[in-house]
Order: sequence, then structure tokens, then C-alpha cells
Amino acid sequence: MNQESDKKDTLEILLDESANLSINQIKGLLDKMNSAELAHSLESSPPKQRKLLWSLIDNKDEGDVLADLGDEIQQELLLDISNEELSEIVSDLELDEIVDILQQLPENRMKMILGKMSSRDRTRIEQALIYPEDSAGGLLNTDVISVRPNHSIEVVMNYLRAQDELPKNTDKIFVVSAEDLYLGELSITKLLTSDVNLTVKEVMETDITPINDNQDDKEVSTLFERNDLVSSAVVDKNKKLLGRITIDDVVDVIKEDADQNLLGMAGIAEDTFQPPARAARSRVFWLSMNLLTAFLAAMTINIFEDVLKEVFFLAVLMPVVASMGGVAATQTLTIVLRGLTLEQINSSNLSYLFKRELAVSILNGIVLANLIGLITFAWFGDITLALLISAALVINLISSGIAGIFVPIILRRFKQDPAIAGSVVVTTVTDVVGFISFLGLGTIFLL
Amino acid sequence: MNQESDKKDTLEILLDESANLSINQIKGLLDKMNSAELAHSLESSPPKQRKLLWSLIDNKDEGDVLADLGDEIQQELLLDISNEELSEIVSDLELDEIVDILQQLPENRMKMILGKMSSRDRTRIEQALIYPEDSAGGLLNTDVISVRPNHSIEVVMNYLRAQDELPKNTDKIFVVSAEDLYLGELSITKLLTSDVNLTVKEVMETDITPINDNQDDKEVSTLFERNDLVSSAVVDKNKKLLGRITIDDVVDVIKEDADQNLLGMAGIAEDTFQPPARAARSRVFWLSMNLLTAFLAAMTINIFEDVLKEVFFLAVLMPVVASMGGVAATQTLTIVLRGLTLEQINSSNLSYLFKRELAVSILNGIVLANLIGLITFAWFGDITLALLISAALVINLISSGIAGIFVPIILRRFKQDPAIAGSVVVTTVTDVVGFISFLGLGTIFLL
Repeated sequence: MNQESDKKDTLEILLDESANLSINQIKGLLDKMNSAELAHSLESSPPKQRKLLWSLIDNKDEGDVLADLGDEIQQELLLDISNEELSEIVSDLELDEIVDILQQLPENRMKMILGKMSSRDRTRIEQALIYPEDSAGGLLNTDVISVRPNHSIEVVMNYLRAQDELPKNTDKIFVVSAEDLYLGELSITKLLTSDVNLTVKEVMETDITPINDNQDDKEVSTLFERNDLVSSAVVDKNKKLLGRITIDDVVDVIKEDADQNLLGMAGIAEDTFQPPARAARSRVFWLSMNLLTAFLAAMTINIFEDVLKEVFFLAVLMPVVASMGGVAATQTLTIVLRGLTLEQINSSNLSYLFKRELAVSILNGIVLANLIGLITFAWFGDITLALLISAALVINLISSGIAGIFVPIILRRFKQDPAIAGSVVVTTVTDVVGFISFLGLGTIFLL
Repeated sequence: MNQESDKKDTLEILLDESANLSINQIKGLLDKMNSAELAHSLESSPPKQRKLLWSLIDNKDEGDVLADLGDEIQQELLLDISNEELSEIVSDLELDEIVDILQQLPENRMKMILGKMSSRDRTRIEQALIYPEDSAGGLLNTDVISVRPNHSIEVVMNYLRAQDELPKNTDKIFVVSAEDLYLGELSITKLLTSDVNLTVKEVMETDITPINDNQDDKEVSTLFERNDLVSSAVVDKNKKLLGRITIDDVVDVIKEDADQNLLGMAGIAEDTFQPPARAARSRVFWLSMNLLTAFLAAMTINIFEDVLKEVFFLAVLMPVVASMGGVAATQTLTIVLRGLTLEQINSSNLSYLFKRELAVSILNGIVLANLIGLITFAWFGDITLALLISAALVINLISSGIAGIFVPIILRRFKQDPAIAGSVVVTTVTDVVGFISFLGLGTIFLL
């Protein structure tokens, strides 16, 4: 069996324009996919094909597919869906999915769609819309099963058996008071293995802290990971049970965070097949910032006009020193960013990290200084030049270690995302220090 | 409630050397943590403190903590644990965890530890050790509950109730033949809501394809995500049920992949608090490669000796053009890497992506050419120089788009990880093209 490569082939056939598939053939391929696979096909399509595929997706699947798409593509498709259609499409979705989609819309469009819903749905959704997208409240669903503490296990079992089916990922039910206050929880497997004559109160677990509705979604994913949760209760500040969060939504949070970290390092925020104008816009800010800082580095070079005019080889070699600093700084920056993301770095271990980075810079500085010195000597046959570039390299690697540690930490303290602004700042530092150290030493020893 | 910041405080207190905690105070803090939190504390500690903390962790928790640690730190701690101790520590772990730890050990040490186990355990572990770490087989656990198709739901319920407790994350049980062949599965919630007089055969689901033991772990995580699974059966090529994979292990795979992608882009593979010598070693290869390619760029500059000696400002401005190309190429590379990782890019949509990147390069080229031209003119008051640097920038941005697309795709075709080698190759291309286009145009128009 090789499910994945079958899927890949289907996708490739689907997107191959030269295959010239008929509408019915495409529909046939789409009908074999579940909503997540359909969403993946849309995400793998250039904009034009994407619209075609979307138009051929079965109406009843549209809501689930829309919910599975990334924010960028959701926004794009939402432009082509009428309000009537949208309110119908979303009606069958889970609460967190509806909220996620509505949050993509402009205020007045969102209100119009809410207006088309039943007042019960509207109230429920409006309550959920209060929460920021990246809070526990933004992830919660209200499809919980809750029971009272005094019931016997047998009563609970009978109650469950009377249901047509239980909500997806129901691995536990929650125990609440008459006022809906969270008292504890009871895992389904515990229910299955307990004496049916015991009461819920006697069997339930009470040592699990439920998630608070205003907790950050990254905290939620940490809690799920550390405790291997499948679902967790969400309560408000008065401990009233609001709903639950399930692992499938947490996996989405984890994937999205990783994606943003990766793209953030390159200063972009776009989906893979975004049309050129939008993709260009997503990248131009970062490029412009780099242009300005590159001119800062150029101004540094300009200071050394005298020595550069005298010793031409310095111009040839100066980008080598700058480039090495840039790479080393990016390495330190990446380690620090990862440590910050995983919440491993705090004030008590920062000094170790700083000393460690200095030590790494010096160790690699010695190795690479030899290498750069040898190559330079082999090329130019000038021992002074070789020693000088070696010294400049060590200086620049040390500066890269210092910048790589402190730039992200300072950016974070000023509430900036270090993944996004970090790289441009550290490479500016290493460019400037690289040029100053190399050309400065050149001025001293070669003029 | 704010669990996370409480935890963070505990960690910070724990690692704060100036707090001068007594051994008993540290033990008190550690005793309040679960195994995942203990593992996080170890991962957040510099090596010396890490050894101290490890020595203070309760013996009964050592196995779980070890299993929760990253590979690098596992290896480090394993050096200090005797074979007797280790075989005892791992004995209570799940199969995939034991295998994961044993795979860190040198061959002969692994054999000695296996020799200390009961022959039943040894056989079970040796069978699991056959699988590569990144295959479905490497993730599987044998703690499955399986039933026969002809039993009634009532019999199954009674069987389950006779168990002390069910394995963690049991959301379904598997239906097998007398020869242990996989026939279907039965979710626990379905079991709870079904008529107890029906047979397993009548209620079980048969349209779910189980995972094959030699499937890649990334395929497994895609299947879990797309189908919102909590657990899945794993079978061999004859459809014999081998065990199951659970979502907690899949979350670890997702996190690890994301981590490797992020670190790979910077050419490193290390844990956050790795001692300096190991950290330096993890980074020096990439730095050396960059040194060699930087000299390639320097050799390009050297070709233009005549014009550089004549027109000093070219030396000042040339790093600007090269740097812009490097940033633009990294942006394209990142988008392509992400598309490859998410399996969105294939032969049928590659040509769109290529044309899109060209369009983005030209669009941003126009915007940035104006900016770079203006700044250059403002600085040097030389219209030819301004036009020339603008043209060189456009050329280099176009080359960055082409390199950013094709380098990762070609690397992947040659079975190299594009995340690791990609960045050094594309920036070399843009450095070289940047210098040639700018200095080449300079030679033509300024000499």
C-alpha cells in the first residue's frame, strides 16, 4: 500500500493542464478526496486552476474545505462567495471553524452574514467572536458532553447509548455543577473499565487544571504536548465550562506556528501559489529594509576610501569577511529564536548561552582564521594580508555571536517578533563590523 | 489561572544559580513536575546544571523523562548511565520509546542492554529495531486492544470492563481474524452508542486503510492531520496487525520536522544548550562551505580590477547589489522549501511558480531599482552610476528568482536536503551574478 504516492499522482494529474481533463473527469477525481485532501489540492493550485477546482467541489463539502484552508486562500475565495451562499456554507461547521472564517471578513460583511443566521446561532457565534484568534477561546468548540457528579456510571452509560453518535474526538466527558461550573472530568476509557454502580463523583479526575478561555494558543499547544491530551475543558474566570479544545485544532496551531517561524525568518507572509502582485507586496518591505541597511554598510566602506584606493585586494576580500559574519550570526540567531519559541531561554540561563556563543565564535574563529589565512596567502602571497584577514574574521565572528544573542532578545523585549526583524538587524551588524575591522586593520597595517 | 507562567517561574527559579537553592528545595520543585516538564527543564539547562538536575530526578521518572528528551540530550545523558541502570530505566517504557533510546547507543552497548532483558522483551524490541527511525514501524506501539468480528458488543464491553485500565489514547479497538489479520476497527464512542446485541462485524468500520509498517513518518503525520486521527492501526505487507501509532507520537514528528527545517536553513543541528565544542562542530562545516563560496565571489570581483581601480565608488556599492540578491533568493528559496515540505509543488504547477517568481522579481525589481537609483544619485550625484546600479539590481533579482526556484528542486532530485544546502548555493549565485552584472556594466559604461 502506498496511499500517499497515489494521492500525489491524483494531484499531479488534476493540475496537469496538458492532460486536458474533461470537467467530469476532474469531478471524478475530486469526489474521491476528503475535505483535507481537497483543501490541499486548492493550496497546490495556481490561482486560475484554484477557482476552477473550487467551482467543481461538491456544495456539501465547501464548508469543510474552506475551514481546512490557510487564511490567505480563505480570504481569496471568500471574495467570490455571496453572503447568502456563505451563511449556508458555514452553517454546518464547528463553532471554531465558523469563527475562523468570519474573522477573515470585513466588519460589515461579517454583520450581514450573522444577520442571516438564526438568533441562537448568532448569539453563540458572537460570543465566540469576542476572543482573539490566537486565544484558547478562539479554538473552543461547544460540542461537549457534560454530566452531573451524583449520577451513577450506569446512568451515564445509558445516557451515552441513547445518543446517535458522540462528537468527534470525544475521549472524555466533563463533570459540572447545576450552575455549569467545572468540577472534574471522566475519560471514556475510565468509564468503560469502572464498576457501573459507582457514581461519577467517585470515578472522576479532579487534579487536571482546565484551560482558561483567555490563555494564549501557544500555551494551549504546550499543555497538550506536555500532557499528551486529546481534548481539554475550557472555562471562564469563574470556572464555568464554556466548551472544549481538541487535538486536531492544536495540531493546526503547531503547524501554523512552525510555518510562520520559517517564513518570518525570510521576511515573508504568503501562501505558496499567491499571485505575483500579492507575493511581491509580501516581500518588498523586507527587501527595502535590507536596501537601507546595505547602504549603511556601503557608507562604512566609503570611510576607508584611502586604503581601498591604495590596496585594491582589500576590495576583493572585504565581502568574504562580511559574508562569514552574516552566516555565523544567522546560526546564533536561529538557535536563540528556537530557544525562545520553545521557552527554553530565560534570565537564569542567558549568561551561559552568551558565554557559550562567545566560546563557539572563538573556536570556529580559530579554525576558520587558519583556513581564510591559508587561502589568502595562497592567492596573494602576502603574509600581512593573510594575518589581517584572519584577525578581522575572528573579530567579526565574535560580533556575530554577540549580535545573534542580544538582537532577538532585545527585539522581543520591545514586543517585536525577533523571527522577522532579527535577520536584517544581525546581518547589518556583521556587515558593518566586518568592513570596519578588515578595512580598519588594513588602514593601520597596510597604509 | 495562569499555569504556563507559573511553570516558567518554577523553571527560572530552578535554574537561577544566584538563588542558591538547597538540594531539598530543588527536589521539591522537581517533584511537582510531570515527565514532560522535567524534560523541558533539562533541555533548558546548561550542561552542568543539567547533570545536577538529572541526578535529582526521582528514579521512577527517569525513563519517561529520558523518552521525552531530544536526541542530542538523550545521547549526552546516556553516557553517564550504566548498562544495568539503563535496562532497568527503560523497562517500563512504551516500545517505541525504548527503541528510540536504544537507537542512540553504539551497537555493542545496545546488545549488552538487550542481553539483560527477558527473552520476551528482547524479541519484541529486536523486531521493532529493524525499522528505520523515520518509518511508521519506528513509531508503533504494541499496546493494542483487538477483538474478533463475531463477538457481540456486549461481550466486548464486558471484556473491556474486566481490564484495570485501557492503554493511553485508546480511541478505537481493532478487529482481527484468528490469524491476527486486520479486518476493521471500532471506535470507542461507536461502541458506547451501539446496540449491545449487535456483533462487532455489524458495527465495525472497514473503509479505513491502516498504515503500512514501512511508510515514511512524514506520510504518517499527513494521514493523521488530514483525517484528524487519534490513533491508527499499523499492519505489515500481509495485513497482519502489528500495533498502533498514536497522535502524541505524531505531534512529536511534526515538531521535530519543523525544528529540523528551521535549523537546517541555518546549516546547524544542535540542541539549544549544547556545550561549545559540540555546538562549534555542528556549525563549522556550513561556515567552511560559505568561506569557499565567498572566495568564489571574491574571484569574480578580482576580474574587474581595472574598473574598480578606476571608479572607487563601485567598490563601495557592489555589496549592496549582492546583498539584495541574497535576501530575494532566500525569500524564493523559503517559499519553495515550504511548498516542497507541504508536498504542494509538483511537475504540473512548477511552471506557474517559475513564471510567478520571475514576475515578482521584475515587480520588486522596478520598485527597488527606483529606490536604489534615487539613493545612489542623492549620494554620488552621478546619473550613469544610478542607472547602472538599478539595472544590475534588476538583473540580480531575476537571477535570485531563478536560483531560488531551481536550486532546491535540483538538490532534491539529487537526494540532497534542499533546506541545508540550498541557502549557501543560492547566495553564491546571487553574489556572483550581483558582482558580474554591476561591475560588468561599470566596465562597459564607466571605463
